[in-house]
Amino acid sequence: MANSKYEYVKAFEQPDVLLPNTWIVVRIDGRGFHKLTDRYAFKKPNDRRALDLMNAAAVEVMKDLPDLCIAYGVSDEYSFVFHPSCQLFERRNAKLVTTIVSTFTAHYIYQWGTHFPETPLESPYLPSFDGRAVVYPTARNLRDYMSWRQVDCHINNLYNTTFWTMVLQGGMSNTDAEQELKGTVSSDKNEILFKRFGINYNNEEEVYKKGSVLYRQVNSSLAGCNYQLEDAKAGSLESKAAADEESSSPMPDSKMSRSQQDKLKKLRRKAQVVVDHVDIIKDEFWERRPWILSGKPGTLPADA
Amino acid sequence: MANSKYEYVKAFEQPDVLLPNTWIVVRIDGRGFHKLTDRYAFKKPNDRRALDLMNAAAVEVMKDLPDLCIAYGVSDEYSFVFHPSCQLFERRNAKLVTTIVSTFTAHYIYQWGTHFPETPLESPYLPSFDGRAVVYPTARNLRDYMSWRQVDCHINNLYNTTFWTMVLQGGMSNTDAEQELKGTVSSDKNEILFKRFGINYNNEEEVYKKGSVLYRQVNSSLAGCNYQLEDAKAGSLESKAAADEESSSPMPDSKMSRSQQDKLKKLRRKAQVVVDHVDIIKDEFWERRPWILSGKPGTLPADA
Amino acid sequence: MANSKYEYVKAFEQPDVLLPNTWIVVRIDGRGFHKLTDRYAFKKPNDRRALDLMNAAAVEVMKDLPDLCIAYGVSDEYSFVFHPSCQLFERRNAKLVTTIVSTFTAHYIYQWGTHFPETPLESPYLPSFDGRAVVYPTARNLRDYMSWRQVDCHINNLYNTTFWTMVLQGGMSNTDAEQELKGTVSSDKNEILFKRFGINYNNEEEVYKKGSVLYRQVNSSLAGCNYQLEDAKAGSLESKAAADEESSSPMPDSKMSRSQQDKLKKLRRKAQVVVDHVDIIKDEFWERRPWILSGKPGTLPADA
Amino acid sequence: MANSKYEYVKAFEQPDVLLPNTWIVVRIDGRGFHKLTDRYAFKKPNDRRALDLMNAAAVEVMKDLPDLCIAYGVSDEYSFVFHPSCQLFERRNAKLVTTIVSTFTAHYIYQWGTHFPETPLESPYLPSFDGRAVVYPTARNLRDYMSWRQVDCHINNLYNTTFWTMVLQGGMSNTDAEQELKGTVSSDKNEILFKRFGINYNNEEEVYKKGSVLYRQVNSSLAGCNYQLEDAKAGSLESKAAADEESSSPMPDSKMSRSQQDKLKKLRRKAQVVVDHVDIIKDEFWERRPWILSGKPGTLPADA
Repeated sequence: MANSKYEYVKAFEQPDVLLPNTWIVVRIDGRGFHKLTDRYAFKKPNDRRALDLMNAAAVEVMKDLPDLCIAYGVSDEYSFVFHPSCQLFERRNAKLVTTIVSTFTAHYIYQWGTHFPETPLESPYLPSFDGRAVVYPTARNLRDYMSWRQVDCHINNLYNTTFWTMVLQGGMSNTDAEQELKGTVSSDKNEILFKRFGINYNNEEEVYKKGSVLYRQVNSSLAGCNYQLEDAKAGSLESKAAADEESSSPMPDSKMSRSQQDKLKKLRRKAQVVVDHVDIIKDEFWERRPWILSGKPGTLPADA
Repeated sequence: MANSKYEYVKAFEQPDVLLPNTWIVVRIDGRGFHKLTDRYAFKKPNDRRALDLMNAAAVEVMKDLPDLCIAYGVSDEYSFVFHPSCQLFERRNAKLVTTIVSTFTAHYIYQWGTHFPETPLESPYLPSFDGRAVVYPTARNLRDYMSWRQVDCHINNLYNTTFWTMVLQGGMSNTDAEQELKGTVSSDKNEILFKRFGINYNNEEEVYKKGSVLYRQVNSSLAGCNYQLEDAKAGSLESKAAADEESSSPMPDSKMSRSQQDKLKKLRRKAQVVVDHVDIIKDEFWERRPWILSGKPGTLPADA
Repeated sequence: MANSKYEYVKAFEQPDVLLPNTWIVVRIDGRGFHKLTDRYAFKKPNDRRALDLMNAAAVEVMKDLPDLCIAYGVSDEYSFVFHPSCQLFERRNAKLVTTIVSTFTAHYIYQWGTHFPETPLESPYLPSFDGRAVVYPTARNLRDYMSWRQVDCHINNLYNTTFWTMVLQGGMSNTDAEQELKGTVSSDKNEILFKRFGINYNNEEEVYKKGSVLYRQVNSSLAGCNYQLEDAKAGSLESKAAADEESSSPMPDSKMSRSQQDKLKKLRRKAQVVVDHVDIIKDEFWERRPWILSGKPGTLPADA
Repeated sequence: MANSKYEYVKAFEQPDVLLPNTWIVVRIDGRGFHKLTDRYAFKKPNDRRALDLMNAAAVEVMKDLPDLCIAYGVSDEYSFVFHPSCQLFERRNAKLVTTIVSTFTAHYIYQWGTHFPETPLESPYLPSFDGRAVVYPTARNLRDYMSWRQVDCHINNLYNTTFWTMVLQGGMSNTDAEQELKGTVSSDKNEILFKRFGINYNNEEEVYKKGSVLYRQVNSSLAGCNYQLEDAKAGSLESKAAADEESSSPMPDSKMSRSQQDKLKKLRRKAQVVVDHVDIIKDEFWERRPWILSGKPGTLPADA
């Protein structure tokens, strides 16, 4: 029985290759997590177990896909970033997005029991995530995207911290707290926390205030490699310019030999995935880790 | 701290709404399942536990998304079909595909232990799936797509059954078996199975030969509803024409009142999801279940 | 000097093939025709010379592209329709749209002097057109699109006829006429025309009330061909069903032999392009000319 | 008669906005110009009248669309470039492409008689053009695109010049000339021209060897504006870096006030469109005219 009679249906598949030489951001979001956090009794305003689980799943995604150069997570969302030179899956949109969503979901479900030993999952109420890809033409646009997410993290966390303190410590009803917070600015909320509850928002945990940033770093035993250290000198203007040049080179990977690319991929696999809770809006973070935007370590170990 | 400075990055998100009034097929595939089946020692040529797990996860997807009207699975792939009138997530491509991929993955991981009690999952070697959406303009195109997958199931299963019988029962090397099967047609393989091993391929299990088709059916206690029974009379030409007319009506759901749509959605939720292993190439399957292509039961319970 | 160094830029071209087996409508619109009609003193509410020029240009487009099966024009816009089986330019969106826009523009400029002998074009104030393609999955959707345009024609023409009669014959200011017409329905406008000016809107010219529909028809000397005649019998339900079946067949042209396709193309070229001003909303127009939706004549001359 | 019944068909129109902050290149090509050049007896290998007509039409397009920052033409093709900050028609793909194609076609037809007074156009054999848009993320990618076209111009012109000299002056048949040129490199062709025909390819006209580049330049009476002069100092590294910074700023125009944008648009309209035949591959062309890539003059006249 030949299949040729029906194979014409393949012609309906439309190509979805993402524009070359652009940053690819895949952002995933928890589906219906409002209900889910009720069912599994997540702590308010932040549940450290839930954030650790998000981060653990994201680390596995980073390890599984060495093409990823950075990721940023807050609450039930995570953004994964591919470098403009990325050729994974020929840059096919659906393939990239679904691979990340599925891998993330798999590890999230698998590790649930480790982080929530007392509230096991109950079918059919399983966590799941949706996702989408967006491309950004310049490093400036990418950094503004990352800043956008971190500012959002700050705004939401300050609000949630104040709201839940008013409710849980202040004994207010949800409605009253919501009503009082309507129209307030950051300084108002800081003041409520400090004056009424003696809480200095600045002393809250960094993971709540800054979210989580994931990137690769090689430990010191692999000498001769820019991945290795946060090098203060690497943050100079010269190296920044070099990084920019790299990132604006037309099609970096396509110009590398196959063996160079393989070497690079291996290095990325070996590199440790770091989970950090720091400011990614200012230049400092990026200047100290030029390899994130440049997409490659300065010196490959084999060359050293 | 206002976020307006960075919010311009939202303008880079491009709309991905699928063409209205078309059938949406979301096909998901196991990622790297060749390696995975080795690691977890799947049985050859077919592992019933693995297929049961696939089907169990697919049933949960069908239950979670009442807009789905049919699904078809074979090996490590599954196709889920939305009716042309579907408005779920405003028909956004990425949202539809990732929701299905993530929900499927979640249940697949969650139920793994039930189906493979002796080979627990080991991180990071977790199963995951990629997926994509394709739209088809006519019911004919959709049925040809479904036929394409089922013919593929047949071709692959006959090959695999013969190959693994030659290797496992016949003691041949993989290479020799592959070599001998090169260029053979169906009748050749049937003959090898029968003459050398006394196996009549027709007696193989239907789930292997036909794959699995999932659809909704209401049990008889909910009288007055076309979902209820496989009605032989419903398969007449008249009702088929009616179903066609429905399916070719411009925008069915948009013409229904909101309360009608809600009623319909509830009915879909109540309907049982059936797992069947039957021919979906011939007309009979579709004629006996006109509600699958028409997208609605003929008589809503409240009208009866 | 090899060009390979720069050829990577070709990778940025993204495919834009339109979904197979759908109706392709290319609608073009005059750019800034409000100003243009002032500059070249078009008559109000309708300038017959301008409509004749639009139609003449559209006829040339139909002749140039035998794949087009019907076109409909009103005011400074024209819609051109390709059959679902169309494979022209591999159905590439930009190629189809720009070819129609450019060919139309070329003939519009070229024939300007014939239709407007007393107001020659003056650079840089040349007429130009933009355009876009939209695909429709079913014949029902296509007919509803055509109906939408013809209803629009009616609504606009009744308004414009009333408005300009009030201004030109009634001596009202533009503002006063606009003000009085605000919120009126069709019957109000008919009454204004009839009671104040003795004009029966029904007696206005059909080209203004109905717009212009272009299609192919073979003259009687080419016997044995469905293109030939408006056959009353062809409008029966049987033949309509047959036509529908054709139009819903999966991929008609791909199933025809190359020589059959060539024969069909020749026939289309030979067929006369008719300019008609009739109702295309009701079934009658389509039932009498089943070849428009079926995409092929019933009997090819060579078969007769 | 309300139109609401059919208006649902508008939902089938799919958005086609081009990615923000990218260079938009619209390339148009003559349709079937091989036949056309035969019919109207274009001179070989180059017909100056035809190139002048192409350039004249392109200049009108540049004047009509002040958002265009540069254009490059060779043979029967022309590339028009919009700056990343361009917001014209909300960056809708079809609208941008068809507007350029139609405006170009209109002027090409209109001016035909001026450039080909002895071979008037004969319907239906009218010139027409197709076109498409491609976006490029970086100035480097854009310049490589432009280089690609100019290298192509060189390769084709050297071949055509040699081929037609061998045929027209050398009396060879087309086939023989083609045969002899197969596999030759540039130096071979240069040698054939020089040794056999005494032609030094370097002395050929620049318009044939380099193609035509169109850009804006303000004459000296509008002092205080970078558009004004080709300033050698402007080509220094500092100003280049400044230009780069501009071009990599996230969304330039959106940050300008409306009145600044209007001022800029006016300035662009006033600027003269220059037709040049120079190298655009090397840095010099771009360094001397930093406003082309920066998208704005350094000092607006009103500020001076």
